[in-house]
Amino acid sequence: KKIVTLAGDGIGPEIMAAGLEVLAAVAPKIKFDYTVEAKHFGGAAIDAAGHPLPEKTLTAAKAADAILLAAIGGPQYNDAAIRPEQGLLALRQELGLFANIRPVQIFEALKHLSPLKPEIIEGVDFVVVRELTGGIYFGEHTLKERSARDVNDYSYEEIERIIKIAFEMARGRGKKVTSVDKQNVLATSKLWRIVADDVAKSYPDVILEHALVDSLAMKMITNPSDFDVIVTENLFGDILSDESSVLPGTLGVMPSASHSDNGPSLYEPIHGSAPDIAGLGIANPISMILSVAMMLRESFNETAGAQYIENAVNKTLLEGVLTKDLGGTASLSEMTAAIIANL
Amino acid sequence: KKIVTLAGDGIGPEIMAAGLEVLAAVAPKIKFDYTVEAKHFGGAAIDAAGHPLPEKTLTAAKAADAILLAAIGGPQYNDAAIRPEQGLLALRQELGLFANIRPVQIFEALKHLSPLKPEIIEGVDFVVVRELTGGIYFGEHTLKERSARDVNDYSYEEIERIIKIAFEMARGRGKKVTSVDKQNVLATSKLWRIVADDVAKSYPDVILEHALVDSLAMKMITNPSDFDVIVTENLFGDILSDESSVLPGTLGVMPSASHSDNGPSLYEPIHGSAPDIAGLGIANPISMILSVAMMLRESFNETAGAQYIENAVNKTLLEGVLTKDLGGTASLSEMTAAIIANL
Ligand SMILES: CC(C)[C@H](C(=O)O)[C@@H](O)C(=O)O
Ligand SMILES: CC(C)[C@H](C(=O)O)[C@@H](O)C(=O)O
Repeated sequence: KKIVTLAGDGIGPEIMAAGLEVLAAVAPKIKFDYTVEAKHFGGAAIDAAGHPLPEKTLTAAKAADAILLAAIGGPQYNDAAIRPEQGLLALRQELGLFANIRPVQIFEALKHLSPLKPEIIEGVDFVVVRELTGGIYFGEHTLKERSARDVNDYSYEEIERIIKIAFEMARGRGKKVTSVDKQNVLATSKLWRIVADDVAKSYPDVILEHALVDSLAMKMITNPSDFDVIVTENLFGDILSDESSVLPGTLGVMPSASHSDNGPSLYEPIHGSAPDIAGLGIANPISMILSVAMMLRESFNETAGAQYIENAVNKTLLEGVLTKDLGGTASLSEMTAAIIANL
Repeated sequence: KKIVTLAGDGIGPEIMAAGLEVLAAVAPKIKFDYTVEAKHFGGAAIDAAGHPLPEKTLTAAKAADAILLAAIGGPQYNDAAIRPEQGLLALRQELGLFANIRPVQIFEALKHLSPLKPEIIEGVDFVVVRELTGGIYFGEHTLKERSARDVNDYSYEEIERIIKIAFEMARGRGKKVTSVDKQNVLATSKLWRIVADDVAKSYPDVILEHALVDSLAMKMITNPSDFDVIVTENLFGDILSDESSVLPGTLGVMPSASHSDNGPSLYEPIHGSAPDIAGLGIANPISMILSVAMMLRESFNETAGAQYIENAVNKTLLEGVLTKDLGGTASLSEMTAAIIANL
């Protein structure tokens, strides 16, 4: 199995190393054979090759069985003509990574980090499914001196395939899909709702509810345990999935997966590159490590391996081994070592 | 002074009556002379005249000194060809109501309603300024059988005037503007950020910070006391202003104002028409009553009158007079009477 790693910028290289250490430690237990190929990506690739997604990186990614991405971006690129995010958007499009999956869960040991009252986050366990290669992200963008325009396009098929993913996931979970749109204003949302209703006919065992994005942005926080699978379009998904990190109260423990129809999937933490603490050895590697677990489960069907890692993370947190962002004093390497010891 | 009232649907008529009772009670104290002209709007207007914004309503609204709107919509219109919201969107456009203002505050007596921990909402006092007549709401909408398109347009001038409003407000408050966009993806957001920087040059006494909408959706909840004036475009403002109601933990105490360049302003609760409790006499009239206070202050410069109402609401809540949605048993008329008694 060939895994391509894109360490990227900021704390990216450190947390990627931690993720790979954990993978190396779990692999023998589950007899998982793999090779790792590291490639330039993001700001690091701009510096090295003048482009955030160099040809060689793209070729390797396309040929991979799975891709691990750590984090990209940094203040030095903020006003540059070429930016790290362009590499990420291009990679999503080139690989057809249309289905972004973000599980939202609360770790027992980290409950106190949530800004929400304990009774609100009790029983929270949902997944945000975000369409990732369509909509206003990939429509025409026109910037003139005195005006600007973005175009939001969706086809029936683009909507259908992501809604199907949501229903398939719901079938294996709580059997409820919440489809989010702005149907009282947008044409794309009117189509979205039609398609969701059409797809629902093939899943009589799953409940479909519709929600307007403004109202959902509220209910996701006030009634988070009402949700099972939330599915939405690209821009709404960007906003709502970041918002969902309010529930655990930290970005530091949230992995994500992005899937295509038949190519390799990509796994990455939802947090950014944290340039302010890069190189200090104090970054929290858990999102990255849990992304490795997601990869084992979703790309390689290694459920046991994923479970080992997730249990080890849980145990380590319960033991009180916490990095600075989680309120503790453990270094990145101490945290990683503790997780490996608990495997 | 001529006030046009649009009671609308559901609980609209009941809460409008309550708002007008309070206005009638405060008017003699501040020697405020006014007339009220009630007009059909929303679903009620569809039923009465076949259109959510009848010509007569629009003509009266244009000739008014201020407009009070209660609430529109109901399940019976959800699948109809003509819907109440279309009247609202048309009214905003016809009156040029480009600046929507939603203050976010926590009432001492209602702190316990917030899903957030007390220390998080301590000191929260910000305003969301939403652009209301541009962007993807008013661009071309195309719905075909197999595809759909929405167009998001902004001109320099449209952005400039709303950003100026935000800076003017910040000058009279905490002297900080947070401008929200998705500048790493959208052309309209790139222009938005350029204009915000341009306008900021005329306000050296006000701090401008930029935030990406995904990140802001998180920080608005985790660090709400960091904000003073949040300004953003139409669609982001729709999502973020609803999301901000998470902080007080109830939609029932949040008023809003919408201003144009030189025509009448419109004041309305941010909550909906609550068809499930319409006519039961148990609706919470506070958002409506506080909208009346906003009208007195912002359209008629009657600061004392606004203050009387706001103090009376505060006092009534502290006395424990609470409607059902706030956890109490007071009816709409009991709540209204208590507020009037406290004026
Ligand atoms: C970096 C940015 C382009 C990206 C997005 O908006 O999709 C990020 O916010 C994300 O959610 O992965
Ligand atoms: C009813 C709807 C069109 C409206 C909007 O999206 O602007 C509402 O959500 C609001 O925020 O006033």
